[in-house]
Amino acid sequence: MKHGKQKNDPQKSDGSVYKLVELVGSSSKSSDDAVNNAVTRAAKTLRNLRWFQVTETRGSLADGKVAHWQVTVKIGFTLDDES
Amino acid sequence: MKHGKQKNDPQKSDGSVYKLVELVGSSSKSSDDAVNNAVTRAAKTLRNLRWFQVTETRGSLADGKVAHWQVTVKIGFTLDDES
Amino acid sequence: MKHGKQKNDPQKSDGSVYKLVELVGSSSKSSDDAVNNAVTRAAKTLRNLRWFQVTETRGSLADGKVAHWQVTVKIGFTLDDES
Amino acid sequence: MKHGKQKNDPQKSDGSVYKLVELVGSSSKSSDDAVNNAVTRAAKTLRNLRWFQVTETRGSLADGKVAHWQVTVKIGFTLDDES
Amino acid sequence: MKHGKQKNDPQKSDGSVYKLVELVGSSSKSSDDAVNNAVTRAAKTLRNLRWFQVTETRGSLADGKVAHWQVTVKIGFTLDDES
Amino acid sequence: MKHGKQKNDPQKSDGSVYKLVELVGSSSKSSDDAVNNAVTRAAKTLRNLRWFQVTETRGSLADGKVAHWQVTVKIGFTLDDES
Amino acid sequence: MKHGKQKNDPQKSDGSVYKLVELVGSSSKSSDDAVNNAVTRAAKTLRNLRWFQVTETRGSLADGKVAHWQVTVKIGFTLDDES
Amino acid sequence: MKHGKQKNDPQKSDGSVYKLVELVGSSSKSSDDAVNNAVTRAAKTLRNLRWFQVTETRGSLADGKVAHWQVTVKIGFTLDDES
Amino acid sequence: MKHGKQKNDPQKSDGSVYKLVELVGSSSKSSDDAVNNAVTRAAKTLRNLRWFQVTETRGSLADGKVAHWQVTVKIGFTLDDES
Amino acid sequence: MKHGKQKNDPQKSDGSVYKLVELVGSSSKSSDDAVNNAVTRAAKTLRNLRWFQVTETRGSLADGKVAHWQVTVKIGFTLDDES
Amino acid sequence: MKHGKQKNDPQKSDGSVYKLVELVGSSSKSSDDAVNNAVTRAAKTLRNLRWFQVTETRGSLADGKVAHWQVTVKIGFTLDDES
Amino acid sequence: MKHGKQKNDPQKSDGSVYKLVELVGSSSKSSDDAVNNAVTRAAKTLRNLRWFQVTETRGSLADGKVAHWQVTVKIGFTLDDES
Repeated sequence: MKHGKQKNDPQKSDGSVYKLVELVGSSSKSSDDAVNNAVTRAAKTLRNLRWFQVTETRGSLADGKVAHWQVTVKIGFTLDDES
Repeated sequence: MKHGKQKNDPQKSDGSVYKLVELVGSSSKSSDDAVNNAVTRAAKTLRNLRWFQVTETRGSLADGKVAHWQVTVKIGFTLDDES
Repeated sequence: MKHGKQKNDPQKSDGSVYKLVELVGSSSKSSDDAVNNAVTRAAKTLRNLRWFQVTETRGSLADGKVAHWQVTVKIGFTLDDES
Repeated sequence: MKHGKQKNDPQKSDGSVYKLVELVGSSSKSSDDAVNNAVTRAAKTLRNLRWFQVTETRGSLADGKVAHWQVTVKIGFTLDDES
Repeated sequence: MKHGKQKNDPQKSDGSVYKLVELVGSSSKSSDDAVNNAVTRAAKTLRNLRWFQVTETRGSLADGKVAHWQVTVKIGFTLDDES
Repeated sequence: MKHGKQKNDPQKSDGSVYKLVELVGSSSKSSDDAVNNAVTRAAKTLRNLRWFQVTETRGSLADGKVAHWQVTVKIGFTLDDES
Repeated sequence: MKHGKQKNDPQKSDGSVYKLVELVGSSSKSSDDAVNNAVTRAAKTLRNLRWFQVTETRGSLADGKVAHWQVTVKIGFTLDDES
Repeated sequence: MKHGKQKNDPQKSDGSVYKLVELVGSSSKSSDDAVNNAVTRAAKTLRNLRWFQVTETRGSLADGKVAHWQVTVKIGFTLDDES
Repeated sequence: MKHGKQKNDPQKSDGSVYKLVELVGSSSKSSDDAVNNAVTRAAKTLRNLRWFQVTETRGSLADGKVAHWQVTVKIGFTLDDES
Repeated sequence: MKHGKQKNDPQKSDGSVYKLVELVGSSSKSSDDAVNNAVTRAAKTLRNLRWFQVTETRGSLADGKVAHWQVTVKIGFTLDDES
Repeated sequence: MKHGKQKNDPQKSDGSVYKLVELVGSSSKSSDDAVNNAVTRAAKTLRNLRWFQVTETRGSLADGKVAHWQVTVKIGFTLDDES
Repeated sequence: MKHGKQKNDPQKSDGSVYKLVELVGSSSKSSDDAVNNAVTRAAKTLRNLRWFQVTETRGSLADGKVAHWQVTVKIGFTLDDES
């Protein structure tokens, strides 16, 4: 993680490296739910997810209403052995 | 539309033009609701709304609490004959 | 207006929507005067102007001097029935 | 306030000065709730809060889910006699 | 106009006001052609177009190729009597 | 895709997640061709490419001429089972 | 000050630390006057003001004219013993 | 010039090249005067100045007041034979 | 805190609020040392410092060499009872 | 050069310094051609041009069509003995 | 590589494609060392690393001092057969 | 200089004009050393260097390590009689 925990993880606290992946989550419910969907999807294939940053909020419109919220997030995770 | 559907609309898929208008929606309930209010208002006078992008989130404060969420959105729609 | 007054205008305070238009005012006198000219022009055709934001300051040069200040402003106004 | 009300407050309307402080609110519930928590905390020690602007939305992840929303806001308030 | 010509147009050179509209042109041919399509469309309903600025270049993909270039442009024109 | 098609794909329209990868395409011919080369390369290993966004245009110079256009693009694709 | 004078102040020239506060000055007269009002207000409670940077220029509109210029400035001052 | 006049100058209208130099003008009087000082200085050594763009407004403070406005401008001029 | 530790601090993990202050550290030695000087100075009057973000790196020049590195940092700390 | 070649040029690979100049190329043909024109012009008076970066794409409009593409580029070249 | 070497590698110089990955390196020693750690980690699983760009510099604080420098870098490498 | 000293230089303090040049320094040692190399090079041909601002930090990679740090700086100097 970009932030805390390093002290609890001393053998790798110095020189820890994190990777950022950029996903777009979508949801018909809410902008927060779009973020949750992106995180849930990332968790299927990546371990050690630590933080996220929202980089864009947009969405599709249909019939004069928000059809889907589409939120772009960067997700940071600890690199162990894949890159 | 900036995104999908062009194939379903072949006679105009090449050279389609969209216009962006910038609105500020407000709501005492939530930031998402402020977006919904902006979209609903746009739909009263514009047809073929296709997507939105949030460009700023702010709000007014009163009595030490959020009084109104004020969210600026750009709304894209297909141009037919007005500009 | 993006900000105050909502309380004085209760019947529309929740869900008020504002529109932003982007104009470039010019003036041979000063940068502030270029803003004033843009606002004055907007007031000819739009009611309920509430606020402005300067997004760019530039100008033309002639004979080694500023010929015209050209200031881009976004002007926000309350949407009533046109968009 | 950066915006309305000046007319109702004529003796200081010209030359009013506001200060911006930057806080990060957090919440396990929602991004809006993180903003509310920042505002509530600011209201404990500052009077005359007028508006806020969201400058960043991020959060921590744990167990493949959002653990805390962390939203950075700038909060504007009228300066009376402290700075 | 934001740029030249003021001298040739003395009766309005001081205080001229321009308006910016934001359009997204699309084209299956090229990014330049997407700009051309946006300008051509604007010229159907607006007079006195003076300049454009590209603010975003993106596009849709299909079958592993660019399907449409989608270029966002701001188009500036002299305001005469509509806003 | 960040935009259209959701309605045609109902079983996954809610909660669809896209991933963005960032590539630099190069070409001695044109800036558009550099984008095409990046997209073609992405299509060799990724399915369901949906959209791209240009984030930087630069290039190398040799003998006082453009040697290669180098255009950075983010390419969005639907995530099915790899991340 | 972020810049000169350090040589005249040798005992603290290395390791001098400055603080930035962000204020919004307002004025019905001019944008420069709004900056002056912010600086004057800061000088009431802070010593050793060194420089300012304008970060935003906006204002309120009333009766189709600029009512107040509202200019956001960051003001830098030498830290002595308060923070 | 980045803008008008090309038509009046046909022999070089296609392929005209302009250069931008970045200067900081200062003035104890006003921000506009700082721009004027930068332009006046540029005109001493450069011909064919065409336009300017303000990229930063800041200044030095002394005795709790603005001492000098310092405005950064990019100045564009037609390239004839020097670069 | 914007980052780790929340789990170790359960009674305040939900709704924790952090404040950001912006300082400019200077050093004749190195850019990193300028950051260290800013942090050391902040630690004299603020408790619970958690993270920093560099927002600008600049410096003064004298005799054709770097005289002082001047690095602007935002420093985040947990708010307990002052603001 | 900001990029490759250093190894082929060992005697100056460490400590090589490049300069960036900012030009605006124009063309009635295409945006790429406007870049080419800027580079060609730079090559008349500067040696060792290495790379360019596009920083703005705009243009003038006449008769409802693009009259000139105007593309701003920064051009980097190796500094030998002039600055 | 985004820059040099293409000429030495003629069979792929036209149409070469690079990929950017975004990593956060950390170090208790220095900001440069945090970059080095990110690059070293990337080199474990990626071949043909060509260049990096720093996109953010921040860090964690403990006991009133910098605990870890955390530097975000984008790393570019030549794409051969994975994406 | 953009900042201090004006008072010590009264005959030119009002209306002083500075110029900014943009250089890229490189170094195999450190990012700070790349800045030093750029400044040293500028000092060979320019007098009265006053300040610098880092605008980009990047570098080349070789053999899985940083080969050269490449730091872009804007360098400000007092204009006396050349531009």
